[in-house]
Amino acid sequence: MGRRFTGIMRMYSIRSPQTHAVFRSSSCTAPGSSRSAGGAHRTDVKASRASSCDGDFCVYLIDQPRRGGAGRSTLPGSITATADDQYWFALFRLGIWPDFFPGVQFPRDAESLNQFFRQMTPDTGPFDAGVIADAVVALFDRIGPGVLVTHSQGGGLGWITAIRSRNVRAVVSYEPGTGFTFPEGEVPPPMPGSGGTLEAVGVPIRDFLQLTKIPIVLYYGDNIPEQVSVNPGQDAWRVRLAMARLWVEAVNGKGGHVRLVHLPDIGIRGNTHFPFSDLNNTGIADLLSGFLTESGLDAD
Amino acid sequence: MGRRFTGIMRMYSIRSPQTHAVFRSSSCTAPGSSRSAGGAHRTDVKASRASSCDGDFCVYLIDQPRRGGAGRSTLPGSITATADDQYWFALFRLGIWPDFFPGVQFPRDAESLNQFFRQMTPDTGPFDAGVIADAVVALFDRIGPGVLVTHSQGGGLGWITAIRSRNVRAVVSYEPGTGFTFPEGEVPPPMPGSGGTLEAVGVPIRDFLQLTKIPIVLYYGDNIPEQVSVNPGQDAWRVRLAMARLWVEAVNGKGGHVRLVHLPDIGIRGNTHFPFSDLNNTGIADLLSGFLTESGLDAD
Repeated sequence: MGRRFTGIMRMYSIRSPQTHAVFRSSSCTAPGSSRSAGGAHRTDVKASRASSCDGDFCVYLIDQPRRGGAGRSTLPGSITATADDQYWFALFRLGIWPDFFPGVQFPRDAESLNQFFRQMTPDTGPFDAGVIADAVVALFDRIGPGVLVTHSQGGGLGWITAIRSRNVRAVVSYEPGTGFTFPEGEVPPPMPGSGGTLEAVGVPIRDFLQLTKIPIVLYYGDNIPEQVSVNPGQDAWRVRLAMARLWVEAVNGKGGHVRLVHLPDIGIRGNTHFPFSDLNNTGIADLLSGFLTESGLDAD
Repeated sequence: MGRRFTGIMRMYSIRSPQTHAVFRSSSCTAPGSSRSAGGAHRTDVKASRASSCDGDFCVYLIDQPRRGGAGRSTLPGSITATADDQYWFALFRLGIWPDFFPGVQFPRDAESLNQFFRQMTPDTGPFDAGVIADAVVALFDRIGPGVLVTHSQGGGLGWITAIRSRNVRAVVSYEPGTGFTFPEGEVPPPMPGSGGTLEAVGVPIRDFLQLTKIPIVLYYGDNIPEQVSVNPGQDAWRVRLAMARLWVEAVNGKGGHVRLVHLPDIGIRGNTHFPFSDLNNTGIADLLSGFLTESGLDAD
């Protein structure tokens, strides 16, 4: 407990964030020897940059295919420069521009916000969930059993990865926002909101059942309304949290082991879309440590 | 001596490589507190990922603006997917595809080559030497005096940076390939070759003279022909080495302190365009350590 995942703050090379990190709970490999996953040509994640072993876990921070340091692709891409700081400020629930939410767990100085925006980097090719999941599967093929940590758009990619790889022994998902997988025929209707309409994804029941076989925890932060909000940045998360609850019911209804932690419900207030890099990140990491311990996956 | 710059292997988020690293020779700042440079909106380098202090130096590994993790830009870009592995294999002087040069300091296993190609990532916006140099200047404004280490296309950017920042106390340039700066009126004619024509750049004499005030060392590897070669990958470096020699004469002719080390001339054979990550990288790092010591810039 109390381990601080300083590395996790750096796992976000984002536009729409969807990066994964892998906490490996078995014996460590020297970082240099597993610099990225093998497998299909140029579709693999590049996990070389910040991989580290601290004695307890090896941590692989992934630049997913077609983003950041793994930007080289077999398909072309075009990037539109967009002045959208205010959009992200809202969607990432820092506040309503230019005001921070009261009590938000984000530093108020200008430089912190500056650096926050600088963490973003665009897609350099078409987003392809299958390519990305295959890449993460290839990483797990290389490193063996581990815990997959996902964030935001990475949530949906994580379910696909866990379906495809037996080496994913648990999933910790911070604010999964898209790609909720339900059994075909049991997909809930699209959920409209002022922040857009969220559609779930159908997968064969055989695939879905894989998700019932591993412990999974979802964390959501603060300032997510229960009622429809005219603020699209917040309403997008009302819808996502509602869909997540349906998803938890669906997985657990088939014998799964999923827990959804809405942080305000356990007295942790003010978290943004990035709980692991918020000011209270040590406490957030403690929750993760607790989950790993309870799941028998803590290297300690 | 003998210090191994393992980090330097990770400084290359390249298409045409042009990344800088900064070895700071004064007191260290904790990596987290200087995550990237301040300055103009979204034009700064992002140096956060692999910054480290090992007790001797703080090392800032830079993703330059519009590349890698610093891919967000105020200008749009388009990326053409190109099957050009053979081109880079040749231009980076690993060999003539699919054969490695005899004695090349590059591991022969397929996975090493695979990982080598994966280090590349495309530009996400227009290449702008002024923007990039300003960004590196902004980094030096933040961290104070240091040694600028450049590579390839970064060489020319490094001269501009050294002209603009008094905090650049030395430049170590591995295989600078473009952007050789000469005093206006003394620019040598373009140099044609089978690998393309290389043009030098004119700058005001006042700017050029800045380059005479700091120690500078250039390193070039092996398999660079002295005579015209029909292999464009090699001939490109014949031209660049020739231009570099003119540049050294120009700077030293105005009172500068530049040394050009063609590694084969001192008995170090087989180096590619990436001497610092070649198999003999420890020996290459020793040369850098020696340069820092001779220049009075070694923290030891």
